[in-house]
Order: sequence, then C-alpha cells, then structure tokens
Amino acid sequence: MSENISVLGLGLMGTALAASLIEAGHHVTVWNRTPAKADPLVAKGATCAATPAQAVEASPLVIVCLLDYASVLETLEGVPLAGRVVANLTTGRPAEAREMAAWVGERGGDYLDGGIMAVPQMIAHPGALILYSGSQPAFERYEQAFGAMAAARYTGDDPDMAPLLDLAMLTGTYGQMAGSLEALALVRSAKYPLMEFTTELLIPWLNAMAAMLPRWAEEIEAGDYRTDVSNLEINRAGMENLVRAFEEQGVKPDLLLPIKTVIDRRVARGLAHEGLSGLVEEL
Amino acid sequence: MSENISVLGLGLMGTALAASLIEAGHHVTVWNRTPAKADPLVAKGATCAATPAQAVEASPLVIVCLLDYASVLETLEGVPLAGRVVANLTTGRPAEAREMAAWVGERGGDYLDGGIMAVPQMIAHPGALILYSGSQPAFERYEQAFGAMAAARYTGDDPDMAPLLDLAMLTGTYGQMAGSLEALALVRSAKYPLMEFTTELLIPWLNAMAAMLPRWAEEIEAGDYRTDVSNLEINRAGMENLVRAFEEQGVKPDLLLPIKTVIDRRVARGLAHEGLSGLVEEL
Ligand SMILES: NC(=O)c1ccc[n+]([C@@H]2O[C@H](COP(=O)([O-])OP(=O)(O)OC[C@H]3O[C@@H](n4cnc5c(N)ncnc54)[C@H](OP(=O)(O)O)[C@@H]3O)[C@@H](O)[C@H]2O)c1
Ligand SMILES: NC(=O)c1ccc[n+]([C@@H]2O[C@H](COP(=O)([O-])OP(=O)(O)OC[C@H]3O[C@@H](n4cnc5c(N)ncnc54)[C@H](OP(=O)(O)O)[C@@H]3O)[C@@H](O)[C@H]2O)c1
Repeated sequence: MSENISVLGLGLMGTALAASLIEAGHHVTVWNRTPAKADPLVAKGATCAATPAQAVEASPLVIVCLLDYASVLETLEGVPLAGRVVANLTTGRPAEAREMAAWVGERGGDYLDGGIMAVPQMIAHPGALILYSGSQPAFERYEQAFGAMAAARYTGDDPDMAPLLDLAMLTGTYGQMAGSLEALALVRSAKYPLMEFTTELLIPWLNAMAAMLPRWAEEIEAGDYRTDVSNLEINRAGMENLVRAFEEQGVKPDLLLPIKTVIDRRVARGLAHEGLSGLVEEL
Repeated sequence: MSENISVLGLGLMGTALAASLIEAGHHVTVWNRTPAKADPLVAKGATCAATPAQAVEASPLVIVCLLDYASVLETLEGVPLAGRVVANLTTGRPAEAREMAAWVGERGGDYLDGGIMAVPQMIAHPGALILYSGSQPAFERYEQAFGAMAAARYTGDDPDMAPLLDLAMLTGTYGQMAGSLEALALVRSAKYPLMEFTTELLIPWLNAMAAMLPRWAEEIEAGDYRTDVSNLEINRAGMENLVRAFEEQGVKPDLLLPIKTVIDRRVARGLAHEGLSGLVEEL
C-alpha cells in the first residue's frame, strides 16, 4: 500500500531512509534545515517542504531523524501534531524518549520511538533492523511501510524500550570490542598473523561463546547462579593467569581489569561456587 | 592408523581425551595420581600404568593433561623422555610453555604444547578445537591421532604460540561476557524479557559485529587507523550518552569504563578522526 510519509532530517541516515521509502513507492515529503540536501531526493520523486510545519501537514506519518533530541524539539516547536504519528528515529537515551513521548502526546500526536541498528549503507538491505516502541496502533498501522527501511520490530508500549534495547546492544558490542582489542594486542605481541587469528580463531570462538548467553538469561531471570561448568573460583584463577601472561608479553590488560575486580570481589564474598552470570548482581 | 598413546592425568579433561582415543581404536595407556580414576577407562580397554615412567615407556606419544605446569614437572621429574613426543595439553602461560619445551628438549623429548578450546563434554564432538605449537614433525606424525580428540590446528614452531592464542581467545570472550553482563543488567532494569533479548537481539547483533574484526586486523597490521565509518569522536559522544543512560537506569557501567577512558584519552591526543582499531596502540 502506498502511504503519504514525511521525513524530517536529511543527514546521512535520513537521506537513506527517505530514499528507501521512495523506492518502495510511497509519496514522500522531505524537509531539512539545510535545504540543498533535499535535491537528490526530489530528483527521485520526493516533494520538498519549505518548513517543518508544511512537512508535518503533508502526511499522517512523520519520520524524524535528526542529530539529537534537542534538535527534534527545536524543529517541532509550535508545529501542530494532532492526528499525526511521529516516529522519532533519532538516537537518544530512554529518559529522553519518555519526555518526548509526553511532549508529543500533549500536542495530540501519537508517538513511536525508534532505535536504528544499522549504518546508512545497510538501509533497505538484509541485516538492517529498526526497533520501535510506544503506540502499538501506530506501529501496526505503518508496520508494512516501516519494513521498506529495515526489518521492523515492535518492543512494547513503553516509549523508552527501543532506545534502551538499542543502547544495550551497543553495550554488548563495546565489551566485545574491548575484549577483541586486548586479544589483538596480545597476538600482535607474538607476531602471529592478525587476519588469520580473527577469521579462523577469534570470530568462530566468539560466536560459539555468544550462543551460551540464553543460558545466562535463564539464570539471571531465576536468580539462580549455581553452575556445573565454570565457577567463579576457576575464573578467578584463570583471570590471574591471564593478567600475568599479559604482563609477561608486555601488553596492558587494562580493559579486562574491571571484570577481574568484580570476580575477585564476588569470590571474596564466599560465592566462588557460582557461575559468571551472577556478576550481574554487582552492576 | 592405530597408535600407541599414553595419557597422563585423568581429571575431567584427561578422561575425556583418553576415552576419545580408545573410541578411535588406539592402544591407550593411562596414568593418574589417584589410580581409581583409571577404572572406567580400563573397562573400555585402556592399560593402566603404575607410574608415570611406565606410562611414558609404553608409548612414543605421551599426552599430558594435569592441573598446571608445576604438576607436570613434578610428574615427569626423573622420567626418561628420549624418543618420546610429549604433547602437553595442560593450560599454562606462554612463558611456561617456553620453559617446558626447553626442559623436555634437554631430556631428549620432542615437545608440543597445546591449548584446548573446549569443555570435556565437547571432546570428540564438532566444534571442539585443540591448538598445537612446537615441533612440526611431531605434529605431522600424530595429526591424525590428535583429530580423534578435537579438530587439530598447528600454529607454528614457537612452543608458546598455542597457549598465547588460547589466552587471546579467552580474552576476547571475557570482553564479550563483560559487555553482555552490562547489557543484561540494563535490560533487566527495564523488565524486558532477557531470553528474548539474548536470542533475538543481542546474539545476532554480536555475531554481525564480530564479522567486522578482519577489517580491524587489516588496519592494525597496516598501522592505518583512518575510518569512514565510526570515528573516535562519534564513539566518545556515544559512550558519554551510554554512561549517562546507565546512571539514569540505576545500573553501574563499571565494566565499560576503561574503554571509555582509552577513547577519551585518544581523542584528547587529537586522534578524534581515527577509528576504534587504533585503541590497540594504547594497550
Ligand atoms: N549514521 C549512522 O550510522 C547512524 C546509525 C544509527 C543511528 N543514527 C542516528 O541517526 C540520527 C541522524 O544521524 P546522521 O548520520 O544522519 O547524522 P548527520 O549526517 O550528521 O545528519 C544530522 C542531521 O540533523 C540535522 N540537524 C542537526 N542539528 C539540527 C537542528 N538544531 N535543527 C534541525 N536540524 C538539525 C542536520 O541538518 P543539516 O543538514 O542542516 O545540518 C542533518 O539533517 C542520529 O541521531 C544518529 O545517532 C545514525
Ligand atoms: N575442564 C575444562 O573445561 C578444561 C577446558 C580447557 C582446558 N582445561 C585444562 O585441562 C587441564 C586439566 O583440567 P581438568 O578439567 O581435567 O581438571 P581436574 O578435573 O581438576 O583434574 C586435574 C588433574 O590433575 C591431576 N593433578 C593435580 N595436581 C597434581 C600433581 N601435583 N601431580 C600429579 N597430578 C596432579 C589430578 O590428579 P588427581 O586425580 O590425583 O587429583 C587430575 O588428574 C587443566 O590445565 C585445565 O586448565 C580444562
């Protein structure tokens, strides 16, 4: 079904989103603070609005993708939102999403917050995912249209859920990157080929280990951290060995030290028999 | 080809290794400090040696899997090793492997060090991997026999390479686990189902992100950290936002703080335009 959709914000991401919607056959109206960025999209069939208010008036669905929540507030200030669905895909914190949902609600709009799990190059390609939370009727009404940009996943009616899950996934990545940087530094110290190490050893291993996470999820939900695999005492000893090996190789294990500290603390509390998932209680 | 193989050490891991070799049709002699642990293997066809010396005498290939390198030295002290291949699969640090290789060499033995990337339950099953380093002729002579225990991978003639790569893979895992623990703590604070979060969101995302690591390997090998994807300034701002979101949710971001510190330090040095792989230079 062809929809009328407005897109506010034509940075790298907004441009990719608008292009995917045009490509899918929707009637797309665009607005950007710096108007020239609309030209390539107009050439593809978009209509260019002169003001945010004109763009919002043009379509019942308004997709917003700006720098941050402050620029969203600035852009929508004084614009009538009654009867509009505002899908705000700008990256922000859960607390900001809660405020924005209230702000849009007070002005008569229906609100969805979104977390884009993709870079612009991935939009409309397999692997791209956008998380949505907030108004369920709004999501269901436009689910198909959203699907043109990326796989669309509804995560609940708390508007802050999509940004929270977005940040949680990013958090997991930062940990994986920190561990991988330390691993690469160690392997470099021994002059082993880094490309071979990542493709043949590290990546399959990380993927195999990630497959254990649902078990952690279960243990944490149950608050039951007993284990028959690898208890905290084994990990404490292993970590001590690891840190010593880093020192012997002349590499700083700095990025690993806090998890070592938390393991040590929990063993000192008499929980040596528990598994690693119990460390969540220290956070 | 059926080989004569001795296994020293019948803890959880040594027992699994010996069982897989018997199952593959080899003539297996076993020894353990506490002899009773040999009984189930003898029932399967193994010969039980009364002393380490007898076990070493029985076979040209001696697989050792004890608690630590100190117990290996204690066990092999005074045992003639001439003409023997000692494959030491006990977990240790690279420096210990170098010493052990010299020690075995002085006694006329050929040395392989190994890193077991598996738990005992995985031995002889797909996914299990053992890394070997040290004497290449010894590895090639027994490569097929080793394959009965787990996929066997030779990583070079420096005896310390297998334990180093083992520790590096473990290091990557600790980072991934630290990030996942923080992610799970954040998601728990919002009462989103943890099982759904891990299986549907976190795991596919971590796997997709791990697929970027070969690019980091390339950048680090080249010492060229320019990026057109996600520079350190974007990551600095993202990290600041992340830490603030953790605080607003009442969750401690402790395990992520050192990578934040290193990003901040590198941006302060004027390297804001570089990518994350350059952080390796700070380690
Ligand atoms: N790029 C990615 O890989 C990626 C991935 C996931 C999520 N995101 C999120 O998507 C959003 C947009 O990212 P992007 O990559 O498109 O950024 P970008 O290329 O820097 O574009 C920023 C956009 O915000 C506009 N803007 C900034 N301040 C404004 C203000 N005060 N009033 C009105 N408009 C303002 C800019 O307008 P002008 O053109 O006039 O400057 C431009 O349209 C961000 O929240 C980002 O975190 C991006
Ligand atoms: N289990 C795993 O998941 C795993 C994974 C990868 C690598 N590994 C490595 O494999 C090795 C063995 O692990 P495991 O799980 O089999 O441990 P385990 O079940 O605790 O067995 C330890 C073994 O070492 C022997 N031992 C300890 N001190 C000794 C000494 N002073 N002299 C002679 N023998 C001694 C024990 O003999 P007794 O029976 O007489 O006590 C037993 O055979 C370790 O280096 C471990 O890091 C294990």
